[in-house]
Amino acid sequence: RTMYYGKGDVFVYRTNASPLEGIKAIPESSFSGRKNVILGMDLKVALKGDAFLSSFTDGDNSLVIATDSMKNFILRKAAFFNGSTMEDFLQFISKEFLNTYSHISSVSLSGDQLLFHEVPIPSTSGFQTSDLLFQQEESVKPFAKVEVRRMDTEYKVMEQLSGIQGLRLIKVKESSFYGYIQDEYTTLPEAYDRPLFLYLNMFWAYENPEDATGIKPDRYVSAEQVAAIAYTVFHEMNCPSIQNLLYQIGLRVLMRFPQLVEISFESNNRTWETVVEEAKDERGGKVYTEPRPPYGFQGFSMTREDLLAAERAEK
Amino acid sequence: RTMYYGKGDVFVYRTNASPLEGIKAIPESSFSGRKNVILGMDLKVALKGDAFLSSFTDGDNSLVIATDSMKNFILRKAAFFNGSTMEDFLQFISKEFLNTYSHISSVSLSGDQLLFHEVPIPSTSGFQTSDLLFQQEESVKPFAKVEVRRMDTEYKVMEQLSGIQGLRLIKVKESSFYGYIQDEYTTLPEAYDRPLFLYLNMFWAYENPEDATGIKPDRYVSAEQVAAIAYTVFHEMNCPSIQNLLYQIGLRVLMRFPQLVEISFESNNRTWETVVEEAKDERGGKVYTEPRPPYGFQGFSMTREDLLAAERAEK
Amino acid sequence: RTMYYGKGDVFVYRTNASPLEGIKAIPESSFSGRKNVILGMDLKVALKGDAFLSSFTDGDNSLVIATDSMKNFILRKAAFFNGSTMEDFLQFISKEFLNTYSHISSVSLSGDQLLFHEVPIPSTSGFQTSDLLFQQEESVKPFAKVEVRRMDTEYKVMEQLSGIQGLRLIKVKESSFYGYIQDEYTTLPEAYDRPLFLYLNMFWAYENPEDATGIKPDRYVSAEQVAAIAYTVFHEMNCPSIQNLLYQIGLRVLMRFPQLVEISFESNNRTWETVVEEAKDERGGKVYTEPRPPYGFQGFSMTREDLLAAERAEK
Amino acid sequence: RTMYYGKGDVFVYRTNASPLEGIKAIPESSFSGRKNVILGMDLKVALKGDAFLSSFTDGDNSLVIATDSMKNFILRKAAFFNGSTMEDFLQFISKEFLNTYSHISSVSLSGDQLLFHEVPIPSTSGFQTSDLLFQQEESVKPFAKVEVRRMDTEYKVMEQLSGIQGLRLIKVKESSFYGYIQDEYTTLPEAYDRPLFLYLNMFWAYENPEDATGIKPDRYVSAEQVAAIAYTVFHEMNCPSIQNLLYQIGLRVLMRFPQLVEISFESNNRTWETVVEEAKDERGGKVYTEPRPPYGFQGFSMTREDLLAAERAEK
Repeated sequence: RTMYYGKGDVFVYRTNASPLEGIKAIPESSFSGRKNVILGMDLKVALKGDAFLSSFTDGDNSLVIATDSMKNFILRKAAFFNGSTMEDFLQFISKEFLNTYSHISSVSLSGDQLLFHEVPIPSTSGFQTSDLLFQQEESVKPFAKVEVRRMDTEYKVMEQLSGIQGLRLIKVKESSFYGYIQDEYTTLPEAYDRPLFLYLNMFWAYENPEDATGIKPDRYVSAEQVAAIAYTVFHEMNCPSIQNLLYQIGLRVLMRFPQLVEISFESNNRTWETVVEEAKDERGGKVYTEPRPPYGFQGFSMTREDLLAAERAEK
Repeated sequence: RTMYYGKGDVFVYRTNASPLEGIKAIPESSFSGRKNVILGMDLKVALKGDAFLSSFTDGDNSLVIATDSMKNFILRKAAFFNGSTMEDFLQFISKEFLNTYSHISSVSLSGDQLLFHEVPIPSTSGFQTSDLLFQQEESVKPFAKVEVRRMDTEYKVMEQLSGIQGLRLIKVKESSFYGYIQDEYTTLPEAYDRPLFLYLNMFWAYENPEDATGIKPDRYVSAEQVAAIAYTVFHEMNCPSIQNLLYQIGLRVLMRFPQLVEISFESNNRTWETVVEEAKDERGGKVYTEPRPPYGFQGFSMTREDLLAAERAEK
Repeated sequence: RTMYYGKGDVFVYRTNASPLEGIKAIPESSFSGRKNVILGMDLKVALKGDAFLSSFTDGDNSLVIATDSMKNFILRKAAFFNGSTMEDFLQFISKEFLNTYSHISSVSLSGDQLLFHEVPIPSTSGFQTSDLLFQQEESVKPFAKVEVRRMDTEYKVMEQLSGIQGLRLIKVKESSFYGYIQDEYTTLPEAYDRPLFLYLNMFWAYENPEDATGIKPDRYVSAEQVAAIAYTVFHEMNCPSIQNLLYQIGLRVLMRFPQLVEISFESNNRTWETVVEEAKDERGGKVYTEPRPPYGFQGFSMTREDLLAAERAEK
Repeated sequence: RTMYYGKGDVFVYRTNASPLEGIKAIPESSFSGRKNVILGMDLKVALKGDAFLSSFTDGDNSLVIATDSMKNFILRKAAFFNGSTMEDFLQFISKEFLNTYSHISSVSLSGDQLLFHEVPIPSTSGFQTSDLLFQQEESVKPFAKVEVRRMDTEYKVMEQLSGIQGLRLIKVKESSFYGYIQDEYTTLPEAYDRPLFLYLNMFWAYENPEDATGIKPDRYVSAEQVAAIAYTVFHEMNCPSIQNLLYQIGLRVLMRFPQLVEISFESNNRTWETVVEEAKDERGGKVYTEPRPPYGFQGFSMTREDLLAAERAEK
């Protein structure tokens, strides 16, 4: 049966966490690491175990860890964290819960990372990034999820997912959408060169959950790098549909990172509506407006099999 | 693999839908039906089928139904709907999709119902409810979800879920929370008479998906009735924890409605923090404020087995 | 110059506040008072005074009341509150601030009242409303604002405004909109019988700010009564535009409540778009959907002069 | 009286608008212009005029411009816009309204600019910014407002305000807050080295509204430059309170831009709560969490008088 309880919106801000260094470079990205002056996370923890059943059926609270205590637990343990990634933090906290409370059988912990951008400050040698002052990012947020279960002699990572959420990408031209089914329900005009506005979330899973921690940084796949692949592929290709764009991004990610077994996508189409096809000046712009509320969406997952199939097809 | 695409926030407002009448009464509720002057829904449709793979891998749109067309399809078909419940509407639309597009293998359709309350208007014989004017409900929303799959000779309802979302129930006294684990992470004081503020969503599944449609209204379980059971149980019991409250509500729902096989709960604890224990007047009120952002939550599901076990235990 | 500072989202929940009784009845409303088992408010306080200038210019905090202390002040004073309305609470707190801190020259305090609806519970004599259990209202919220200034020998209420926010009223037929300017920018079709969906906020001011407190309850104008007038007028009239509807509501409010000097309106037009003019069944419903994001709005204020002018015109 | 009506959430996306070039450099910022591949705005227009009174009192729509037509008007006129700033666009559209409809006496038009960041793309000569692909900024938004009134022989800009909204700045150390009033309502501990998290909006007014248009780009004050001044001042100073920080930013802005007559601020204090003073590692970080919901806020405006007074004081 479904049975869990926990605490959401546990905000953890850990300053001076261990820097993330030694990332393996890929051609699509100049990302080389995070200083981690602020490691910010909005976390959700759920505890599971048959021992909790009596709290439901009998109102017996003797094995209940108050959710307020869970929040305290996570915040205080954060002072002992020596890692450099949210994924590592989630595994660390999950194991601490299992260590401390023997009647928990598994811990599910997920969260959004809250990014803080360095701001440029003038210095005698030009503009430099401040190591004191940051602007919070509201849109783009790395994601991680882990479920760790108590086994006979060890703790096992049952699920490990990393991701990036909140990309809102607009390509102003060189996308199309035509050739779809035309019937009595079709009113959308075909488009041979449309702007394409995409809300995009991506999630990836490692073959070995330990690689997700960043303890071996050259095995770590950063959200920034996956985003950069999405930028590059989207920029390069003349895209006939969101569906095909997702597939091409997926192939590139799986090619760059052999340590991943799967990548999946959630996307929304927020493409503007065209109002004026040609502005009345020599630069030839257009005028668009926001679309109606209904939004198209896509869900798609790919594994290494897809990469192999694509490579076979190319030969 | 995960592969679907579709349209979200398809708002359907159908006026003068068939009234819902003939509901079976239960002691906890005076609900007897809905006039359906406005049947409002915020829907999300996803189509699935292997035929869509080439739109991802090859950018071949020839089998793609534009999500704009899906929206048109739902809105126009709404004019042909003769039923009286959102559940019936979802099954109707799903089957229409499968009828119209032979390459779809299954349709997933879910939605929130948007309720519009009648307002009282003076008349010569006292106040009556207007049949013209309504106030939109912002918080409480019935929910439904269905997945219908194409089989060899029929369409099969693979999943049918009904629900109610957005209950925000505060009981000002006669709830407690004590006896939980006390350790170094515990700072929450025990409470023997606390206010309890609960955000509550409930979901139920029928043994026979046809009963969810309301075509036989005496087999239909309305969101209003399930809410009324929650009100009554919460009002009556001196509640030692949210967990136990959910269990008691679940038993009552399963007892009242033998046509259900399962009920599940998602709850949040939004209990206020106490600031002043006793107001300085003869009525003896208290002063509370909003809690910190982290919120406790619970997830729990129950089946008829739980009702049987409780009945056995009572004997 | 603009200079103030303060605290927002101060949530005050006062239980067992003094009931509001003795309200004067009007034909449009059956409202007779509030039990005030929960008096809930989301408040915003701002302090003003020349004494605060040095905190800006010199960083001198010696006259600064920490905003955290303001929050504590309001919450603790709430235990001493003996009134029955939010308007009274705001005047009470404002004067307590001026009493306590002699360097404040004026206090601005505003807030939304958070309503909690009684839920029906079965009893041996039919359904009754619970005095323990409430459902929070998410949409409709009374509003109040006050500014109290220190004068030579007294505190003067410089501004007193009451209101209601969040009405979301849909009248399914018997509204029209035609006869407006037709030119090259007009694409909206004229409508002779349209549904009209209105978001409506209303604000009113008393001639004597003391009447706003409810200390003399027969002089108090409740948000419930003003809402009921809006319901009744909207229900009764065949409405040619939102503009005219506001005016008619305003006349009725000013007629019912001679103690008011002004009423003003903020409204949004959220009228659905028609998709199917006639459903395919004997009840003849229609199908509508959500409009595009841009929304029409109106702002309008009326005084007793408008009522007099209307009365003169009628003769 | 208050009397206006209009349209909100008019989203305008104009591609290939005229680039903003020739900005005057300041030491705090490396900003030199905007390419304006996308000029995105979320606008709100309100029309005013005595001629509209009969639409309220008599329901006479003959002088009513449907708000839907206003939306069309703005979108189609956008194709004729030759300027490079939102301020210019607002003045342009306001005058077009006054030109077209002689019964309008004034136009109020305001909006948020929607920024789209260039993304880096690999090229043969290293990473370059794409001229096709952009990521929408969700937090930081330039603001502008204008009111243009019909006079006897001309249109007069009655109000012109520019601004930037959504800065969310956290400085992790070297801020303090102490020396404030200590009394029975004080529970906040004094802080000699706290992190300071600020939500900041800033607004500025030009002596000559024409300078706001950017037609003479060396007279234009960009939101990016004002933000950069806020970064630099905040980074440099050891800040004893938000109040003093605002004042210092204001002095710097007024000093850099003599064409401005006023700058004003709206700020929120969202400073984290400290949970662990010293992390258990050699880097000595801390652990913080989100504060309670009540937030402190400040409002403050400054004119050139304040700059003169500060300069006098320094001598």
